[in-house]
Amino acid sequence: MSDRIDLNADLGESFGAWTMGNDAELLDLVSSANIACGFHAGDPLVMTKTVALCRDKGVGIGAHPGFDDLRGFGRRRILGMSAEQTTALLLYQIGALQAIARGAGQQVRHVKLHGALANMASEEAAIAEAYVAAAKAADPDLIVVAMATTELEAAVTKAGMPLARELYADRAYNPDGTLVSRGQPGAMIHDPDEAADRVLRMVEEKAIRALDGSKIDTPGDSVCVHGDGPEALRIAERIRSRLEGAGVQVMQMG
Amino acid sequence: MSDRIDLNADLGESFGAWTMGNDAELLDLVSSANIACGFHAGDPLVMTKTVALCRDKGVGIGAHPGFDDLRGFGRRRILGMSAEQTTALLLYQIGALQAIARGAGQQVRHVKLHGALANMASEEAAIAEAYVAAAKAADPDLIVVAMATTELEAAVTKAGMPLARELYADRAYNPDGTLVSRGQPGAMIHDPDEAADRVLRMVEEKAIRALDGSKIDTPGDSVCVHGDGPEALRIAERIRSRLEGAGVQVMQMG
Amino acid sequence: MSDRIDLNADLGESFGAWTMGNDAELLDLVSSANIACGFHAGDPLVMTKTVALCRDKGVGIGAHPGFDDLRGFGRRRILGMSAEQTTALLLYQIGALQAIARGAGQQVRHVKLHGALANMASEEAAIAEAYVAAAKAADPDLIVVAMATTELEAAVTKAGMPLARELYADRAYNPDGTLVSRGQPGAMIHDPDEAADRVLRMVEEKAIRALDGSKIDTPGDSVCVHGDGPEALRIAERIRSRLEGAGVQVMQMG
Amino acid sequence: MSDRIDLNADLGESFGAWTMGNDAELLDLVSSANIACGFHAGDPLVMTKTVALCRDKGVGIGAHPGFDDLRGFGRRRILGMSAEQTTALLLYQIGALQAIARGAGQQVRHVKLHGALANMASEEAAIAEAYVAAAKAADPDLIVVAMATTELEAAVTKAGMPLARELYADRAYNPDGTLVSRGQPGAMIHDPDEAADRVLRMVEEKAIRALDGSKIDTPGDSVCVHGDGPEALRIAERIRSRLEGAGVQVMQMG
Repeated sequence: MSDRIDLNADLGESFGAWTMGNDAELLDLVSSANIACGFHAGDPLVMTKTVALCRDKGVGIGAHPGFDDLRGFGRRRILGMSAEQTTALLLYQIGALQAIARGAGQQVRHVKLHGALANMASEEAAIAEAYVAAAKAADPDLIVVAMATTELEAAVTKAGMPLARELYADRAYNPDGTLVSRGQPGAMIHDPDEAADRVLRMVEEKAIRALDGSKIDTPGDSVCVHGDGPEALRIAERIRSRLEGAGVQVMQMG
Repeated sequence: MSDRIDLNADLGESFGAWTMGNDAELLDLVSSANIACGFHAGDPLVMTKTVALCRDKGVGIGAHPGFDDLRGFGRRRILGMSAEQTTALLLYQIGALQAIARGAGQQVRHVKLHGALANMASEEAAIAEAYVAAAKAADPDLIVVAMATTELEAAVTKAGMPLARELYADRAYNPDGTLVSRGQPGAMIHDPDEAADRVLRMVEEKAIRALDGSKIDTPGDSVCVHGDGPEALRIAERIRSRLEGAGVQVMQMG
Repeated sequence: MSDRIDLNADLGESFGAWTMGNDAELLDLVSSANIACGFHAGDPLVMTKTVALCRDKGVGIGAHPGFDDLRGFGRRRILGMSAEQTTALLLYQIGALQAIARGAGQQVRHVKLHGALANMASEEAAIAEAYVAAAKAADPDLIVVAMATTELEAAVTKAGMPLARELYADRAYNPDGTLVSRGQPGAMIHDPDEAADRVLRMVEEKAIRALDGSKIDTPGDSVCVHGDGPEALRIAERIRSRLEGAGVQVMQMG
Repeated sequence: MSDRIDLNADLGESFGAWTMGNDAELLDLVSSANIACGFHAGDPLVMTKTVALCRDKGVGIGAHPGFDDLRGFGRRRILGMSAEQTTALLLYQIGALQAIARGAGQQVRHVKLHGALANMASEEAAIAEAYVAAAKAADPDLIVVAMATTELEAAVTKAGMPLARELYADRAYNPDGTLVSRGQPGAMIHDPDEAADRVLRMVEEKAIRALDGSKIDTPGDSVCVHGDGPEALRIAERIRSRLEGAGVQVMQMG
């Protein structure tokens, strides 16, 4: 039986008169789209158009909620929110996309947090649980995307929600499964072939290799790729063709 | 068989640190709540709390979407939106509330437009149809609240959506069923007894009486009441007690 | 004595993580910049960077305020604002840019309204006067940019404020001085040479030529050019070189 | 020669259709107003009206800028802003109020940070310096309000800007001059007489008394009072009458 893996990317990050990303190209490469929900990026019309594109290309639709921080693109940590506030913030955004998807005869299949809130949910159990509560309230069958070994993975498992373990093609790992910080040497993989090789190996080994060579056994369900700029698109293409060349099916998570 | 009628009011109009309205008192008087959806008023946490209050008091939950105009409280007309934008704007808001209602084990039962957009949808078929398309996409069983004789009523009927005809307790009508403009003499009814008498008469006659005494035969399904200030609450109380005293059941539309 | 004219363009329309326009190229072509003030586009950091670019290139700094409508990019008409609200809305934005300019050792020299509010101020005296009141309160020496024959021109004159009459390079005029609507045949000039010829003629004749050949005697002070896309930049370049080739000095208004 | 002290309070925190605070009453008690600048509270029209009230009552006008976080009322810490962004954020807000003050023939006299950003500027030199740079760029004569012994006090002194040292009437101090955290026993003073006694003592001793009785010699220039609710107003009244009864003049800082 052949292996399979999902490729996911952030999409629908345009806002009003401002365009961001290469959504049309990216949608030919990925099997799942994380669609911004209007709080850190995106707006109702952009969401509607992105959902229609996903439907037309057979790409899985996912919600990509974040902080209510348009000016900071959801990348700034905002502290001091209660669990109730966090759940409400995220349930609101997921629900908005669900309705827009229904309007196109589609369904939101997965959810992946954006930016600073994603980092915080990886690190803090209370935030992870508030987020998973929102996902479960929206739809108990939603697949929650999480990195292995994080507080978020633990919260998803605890809540009995479907989990998709995410792999990073272009980032090096620490022995504990966290990402090597961007400032550190070797943190980022820029070479498309190297990125593609790493992904294939992680898929075949069902494990993450850390920078020091140590191995964390964890099967990956979805690989995060990027579409910001020609280089990112090239990496995504190389990963997809390398995987398919090795007989790994690229298909929607779940 | 006894008559029945719904009483609806706008709720959940607080925002962040700002409180508005007398939601707790009002929820003891009405049978349906129009809950602001975060664009002209309300926010995800306020919506969550308002839904919980409605559930606890057995009040029907409705979406009350409006323009994305927090500073203007949705009362300013914003021109030049395409039908696609209008549908997306409203579907987004309705969906957000639907998810929050699901999170509380509840369901959004009706939808009523807010402010300037409500006026525009009464007058312009294209806007009415874009709105009804949003309601239908969110849930084809949603009851759409509309005044009789408006473009909105026509659009709801055309779309085959459930309709609730709305009556105004405190506003005089023109012979064509529109409201007398606020500036005109006799436009507003301030006396609680007079307001209550008018509502009871409209319910019993299944008709609207215009200022000139002429009659428009149209059964009313829901009476709009207000909660801003002690006087408004007093009018709402009087209407409810007058109706119940006359054997009219106050109960949720639909 | 040689003729002179100003070339103005909208700049600083990026927002947060979103980039818009070709500010660096455009700043080599124009003599005045209309800088978005954070309500329909721009943000405090973008404004700071744009002011620094203007200073470095010797381009005149102007405020470009608009409606508080980020999602609609200030292009949607918003109705029902009082004169007091309009003045406050605009004074706020102009003041914000003035302080940022002071921080760079610079001064705001002119003001030009953006989008839908600009159109409304051309047509309605009350809006024009509320705007001019804001400009005067911010700095009585601010040059207010206005099209000839508009309500805005009248309001500027009435208030005794400095006026810059604006010409459009790429738009045809009606005999009353208004622009031919975009939908009409001949409304837009796409050919760089034709646009440049028209500008030179308007500068030399000190008059506007309408589509029907009729002439309105009105000296122009500033020509509006655009920077959105390579074609627009090419038109701006052609206009500048044609003017300079004919001995017209391109320099800041005022 | 008699002592003098300023009383300051936050004002102009209404927003659009939402009212907050008891501005009219409070303006009869304080000598300086910290006016919200539209980012965490307030809007251009509220600012205009608040400035007019201050002018009419002879109360000193100050800017009260904060994070761009309307939903969180500026009380949530937002991390990761560069110094340049922080300066731009604050200069923008101060400038907006300066222009509105000019429009009323008034001048912004002081500046006091709001909420979470105020706390961060007390603790972190980089943030304090970015803020002081904004104040200086807006107007080198602006009085910057700061608590004694904070990083902000140091930054104001370092920049050579005018400083107003602020005292808290209703909060207990630690021996290092910081406020006792709200959760701790004795942190808050609720009794009007006790609050008034403490203020008078701090003014007379030109020192802060910590909870443990230790003394920090630092003259106070301004006492922060609150206006949210009848109790807060009563405390403010008691403080003012106690000070005046003891011959201390309540007058604007500077």
